[in-house]
Amino acid sequence: MKIQHQTSVTAYKAGGFIGRYQRLIKDIVLPCQYSILCDEAPDTEKSHVVQNFINAGKVLRQAGENPAAGECGDGFYGMVFQDSDAAKWIEAAAYCLSLFPDEKLEETADRLIDIIADAQDTDGYLNTYYTIKDQDKRWTNLLEGHELYCSGHMMEAACAYFEATGKRKLLDVMEKNAEHIYTHFITQGHEGCPGHPEVELALLKLYRLTNNSHCMELAQHFINTRGEDPHFFEKEKEKRNWHVWNNDPVNTDYMQASKPVRTQSEAVGHAVRAVYLYTAMADLASSTDDGELFDACRRLWENITRRRMYLTGGIGSTVLGEAFTVDYDLPGDTAYAETCASIGLMFFASRMLENEIDGEYGDISEQAFYNTILGGMQLDGRRFFYVNPLEVIPGISGVSPTHRHDLPQRPKWYACACCPPNAARLIASFGKYAYGENADTAYCHLFAAGEVSFENGMKFTCETAYPYGFDIIYKIEKGGKLAVRIPGWSRTFQITIDGSPVSIKPQKGYVYLSVTDGTVVTLTLDDKPQFRYASTKIPALTGKTAVCRGPLVYCFEGVDNDNDILSLSLIRNGNLTASDYQENLLCGTATITADAIRHTDAAQETAGTKLYTDCPPTAAFCQAVAVPYYTWGNRGENQMRVWMEEALSAPPETFL
Amino acid sequence: MKIQHQTSVTAYKAGGFIGRYQRLIKDIVLPCQYSILCDEAPDTEKSHVVQNFINAGKVLRQAGENPAAGECGDGFYGMVFQDSDAAKWIEAAAYCLSLFPDEKLEETADRLIDIIADAQDTDGYLNTYYTIKDQDKRWTNLLEGHELYCSGHMMEAACAYFEATGKRKLLDVMEKNAEHIYTHFITQGHEGCPGHPEVELALLKLYRLTNNSHCMELAQHFINTRGEDPHFFEKEKEKRNWHVWNNDPVNTDYMQASKPVRTQSEAVGHAVRAVYLYTAMADLASSTDDGELFDACRRLWENITRRRMYLTGGIGSTVLGEAFTVDYDLPGDTAYAETCASIGLMFFASRMLENEIDGEYGDISEQAFYNTILGGMQLDGRRFFYVNPLEVIPGISGVSPTHRHDLPQRPKWYACACCPPNAARLIASFGKYAYGENADTAYCHLFAAGEVSFENGMKFTCETAYPYGFDIIYKIEKGGKLAVRIPGWSRTFQITIDGSPVSIKPQKGYVYLSVTDGTVVTLTLDDKPQFRYASTKIPALTGKTAVCRGPLVYCFEGVDNDNDILSLSLIRNGNLTASDYQENLLCGTATITADAIRHTDAAQETAGTKLYTDCPPTAAFCQAVAVPYYTWGNRGENQMRVWMEEALSAPPETFL
Repeated sequence: MKIQHQTSVTAYKAGGFIGRYQRLIKDIVLPCQYSILCDEAPDTEKSHVVQNFINAGKVLRQAGENPAAGECGDGFYGMVFQDSDAAKWIEAAAYCLSLFPDEKLEETADRLIDIIADAQDTDGYLNTYYTIKDQDKRWTNLLEGHELYCSGHMMEAACAYFEATGKRKLLDVMEKNAEHIYTHFITQGHEGCPGHPEVELALLKLYRLTNNSHCMELAQHFINTRGEDPHFFEKEKEKRNWHVWNNDPVNTDYMQASKPVRTQSEAVGHAVRAVYLYTAMADLASSTDDGELFDACRRLWENITRRRMYLTGGIGSTVLGEAFTVDYDLPGDTAYAETCASIGLMFFASRMLENEIDGEYGDISEQAFYNTILGGMQLDGRRFFYVNPLEVIPGISGVSPTHRHDLPQRPKWYACACCPPNAARLIASFGKYAYGENADTAYCHLFAAGEVSFENGMKFTCETAYPYGFDIIYKIEKGGKLAVRIPGWSRTFQITIDGSPVSIKPQKGYVYLSVTDGTVVTLTLDDKPQFRYASTKIPALTGKTAVCRGPLVYCFEGVDNDNDILSLSLIRNGNLTASDYQENLLCGTATITADAIRHTDAAQETAGTKLYTDCPPTAAFCQAVAVPYYTWGNRGENQMRVWMEEALSAPPETFL
Repeated sequence: MKIQHQTSVTAYKAGGFIGRYQRLIKDIVLPCQYSILCDEAPDTEKSHVVQNFINAGKVLRQAGENPAAGECGDGFYGMVFQDSDAAKWIEAAAYCLSLFPDEKLEETADRLIDIIADAQDTDGYLNTYYTIKDQDKRWTNLLEGHELYCSGHMMEAACAYFEATGKRKLLDVMEKNAEHIYTHFITQGHEGCPGHPEVELALLKLYRLTNNSHCMELAQHFINTRGEDPHFFEKEKEKRNWHVWNNDPVNTDYMQASKPVRTQSEAVGHAVRAVYLYTAMADLASSTDDGELFDACRRLWENITRRRMYLTGGIGSTVLGEAFTVDYDLPGDTAYAETCASIGLMFFASRMLENEIDGEYGDISEQAFYNTILGGMQLDGRRFFYVNPLEVIPGISGVSPTHRHDLPQRPKWYACACCPPNAARLIASFGKYAYGENADTAYCHLFAAGEVSFENGMKFTCETAYPYGFDIIYKIEKGGKLAVRIPGWSRTFQITIDGSPVSIKPQKGYVYLSVTDGTVVTLTLDDKPQFRYASTKIPALTGKTAVCRGPLVYCFEGVDNDNDILSLSLIRNGNLTASDYQENLLCGTATITADAIRHTDAAQETAGTKLYTDCPPTAAFCQAVAVPYYTWGNRGENQMRVWMEEALSAPPETFL
């Protein structure tokens, strides 16, 4: 069964845990980020992104003169894809406006859109880097140039802003931009596809909103031509005499262009590029009923989630190329696991759901969202991780040459600032991922308190303290068919309708209920903390165990454990006890206490300061305390570990 | 108490385990490597080193004409330090000639020395890279240029060849070269010290042999000026318009030049450079009774051996700069642990012994020698590792971008071929490290079967099957004072003199005995396999244990363990059983069998192919088989792991 569309973003008014995060995005994150985009935030990496648009507009108005001089102010500053930060901010602002109408925020966004519109050339071209620096370089470096990437993000912003406000200005700008791209690649027949996929999924969004067939045609063109000629980027490089980073065009895995997309089976290369591409592929597969394309998506999905994904939903295990590596290569301490890649994984999951309803898409979305994505942002919304390791040891992390990327504390902003605004737009649009619908059914993929109304007429309120409470109560206002995901992690579940238990077997991870106006459906999930074990095929995780509760992966920080988590082992089958919800801890959380062994280092004790000794460490029983992974690094620099050593405290039964 | 000199290389005729290796160097390694140096080996990386010397000679004989054209043949090929491969080969050949006189080998070496001598300029300069490519670049790039490094290796070769054969030709060439360097740096006062330390330790050797005070003065100059001006290499770079690798002159840690050597406390930067420098520092400290310099050496020694060294005696844990990182950062699977660095660590230990007698120097030398250094060479002497990881998983090692340097199989040769000839010269001169002496005492630092005679008149034969037999029998021919190291790993030891047990307490790791002609001294060491535990401060090794016997670190390979070592845990306090010596296994070895648990992956079994599950793996008792680390990778591509998971099979006593 297919879901044809995500719910519209206006359908969902959030409360509870997600609601708090969404208010944080509106009240703190968006204003903070806007001041950064305007270079008004003190002690922060320079952004210049708004000024770039202003300068590009000036360049266009003095066309014919030297574009980099005179009126154009201080030129261009930042990454080649700097424009996209403004786009993501507008998109996040749009989602917030649909949740929390706010005149001041809308005025700010309108003003920014005016500035952006002024930076569009008369032929529809829109990109400040090229407009300011060198208009002759347009479309000459698809490998590194990010023109299509920036257009894609601005198209997404345009769609979201139109949906939220009904204002067409940015949508018109981006339809004109799409037409410009269509002319270049289709009408004029210039070869190539983007080095960084993104425009494909954006064009499909734009098509869905505008019904402009050129958008669909362009999206199909970029998806279908990718990898058809694996030497395209080499030839392109030969033709140009400039570069951005001098990316190697021979390493076509980096941009998923080694073979046609329908024949791809392994998730390779830059992880964000990969999942943005797969998102578009899955979207196109459902839009066009393309079984071959869906099969490729399914192979790639399985390759990621069954061989190349961290427990936290992080993907891309190496800093080298911010990339996927090989099966089972998932070191925690040198993990890259970029926040944006997990965001892209949620995109991919949501588009897979449009092809087939299966609970695993929601399971993986939750893994990514509640762990890597939320962990990417400080609890106060003011600092961000780009990289999300599963282990941090101060003195090594961020310091050793092989750990330079794994920071023990979140920085305020990055020169390459893709992740912070990406997290903002994802969190603000959580409702799009939580709910789906088709003609007769409302789908609850993820759990979030709030009111939801569907285009098919259904409407309900969801009450829950999830992920810290495990009752999810749906109070049905307008009935119909309700499909609720039963998470894969929940060993047990119970459903009551108006207080009476009902027995329903999930189909592919969903229970289906017919509900009428006024019905109260309560889903009760397993609230017990659980151990997690990794496949023994992952060399980095042999002998280890992790602790989870609900969708939350937990971690152990030094601050809760005598500043030494390295000498702790968790006891196999030992007690795991969740605390009550503590409102004042880490913006509200529950800890888990685990039976553990503290090893005291014989090497240090009996032999001075030897590194290695023949004396085993002595062991003493203790209690170890874990907090949710998404809250780590909020209490100063600190040891942190997700995967803990496990002690078999009693001989396995086979010995007895 | 000091030892003023190592024993001369002619003093030691080897048998037993070391003897087999030394014969292998002479019979297989040297001929193989010579054919490579002459570009006569099929399917091997091109060396061109002999041809470089021939071509440099031609250039010099046509001085005034364009040096890179005409008579000089095919110019220069290889690394800027290519000359040093020839030097190390001659040095290894010299040691072999003193062990096993061989006319043909000596003729080959003489011929090569003639070619080298012909490549020396009239002013004493000797370096084929600069002579062939651009003589104007001489001495303009001490950071990367390796002229002093190559001179140092050729000085070491000259000393060894003179000691072995009495032939002065190469010694004269290198004294003249030393004088050329003296003129440049001392007489003419050009600033700087070598980017890659080596010439310092070589000049001290040359000084000891020739008593040429300029050699001592130069060595002191280079050691004392290092780090005095941390900006020297930056200024040098500003003055030149060429580079080799474009090394960053600001990263002065890389070449140990951030501060004066006497104030250094942490082993930093390129590991081979570091230990070559520290070797010279320790040598100079003992030669000049420089307590401040020795204190620095001691701090650096302790920093390496107590915080930055693998169990295998490997050092330099990152591929990035082939370098030391930070304390306790010792990942096994991405280890660099270059063979040459462990060779340099033995150099350093041997010079520390000239400052103070302490058993730990021999302990560390054995760790480095019997594990990383021997492991660097295939058992047949035909292939070599540059990088010596402590864990190899085919499919990840050598493939994943972060594991590209960790190869699961030894290549034949390298474009940068420093390690193979370095291993050859170290193994061939094992006697220099095994024995030392002063006026009245013969020191036995390491154990090796063979005859030994000392300049102080003492002489004995050592009989032992060490490292596979743990009786070491000294049959004294000419008596005196005998000092024998009791290894730190030996929990027990017994000494008998002419069959009668004697009770002696070691002083700083050595027992001292007065022996007369005809006395038979038998030392019996602990032959039991032992577990090893790492400090819990090493994040990569928490929860793990390793197995050792004598100086040998063992490892577990797939081929002995059902092709899956990842799912094995060794049982705390379980049985470890050494096999009898098996002559036909891996050129003669003993295996160790350990009580273990085989975990069967619930994630794979009960849940299809999930990466993570809430079911613990099932455990079954089994026996795991280990082989010495130095023998790994000799039976095809294979999983290998030194540090195994440990299972606490019973609750620690504190629980009971």
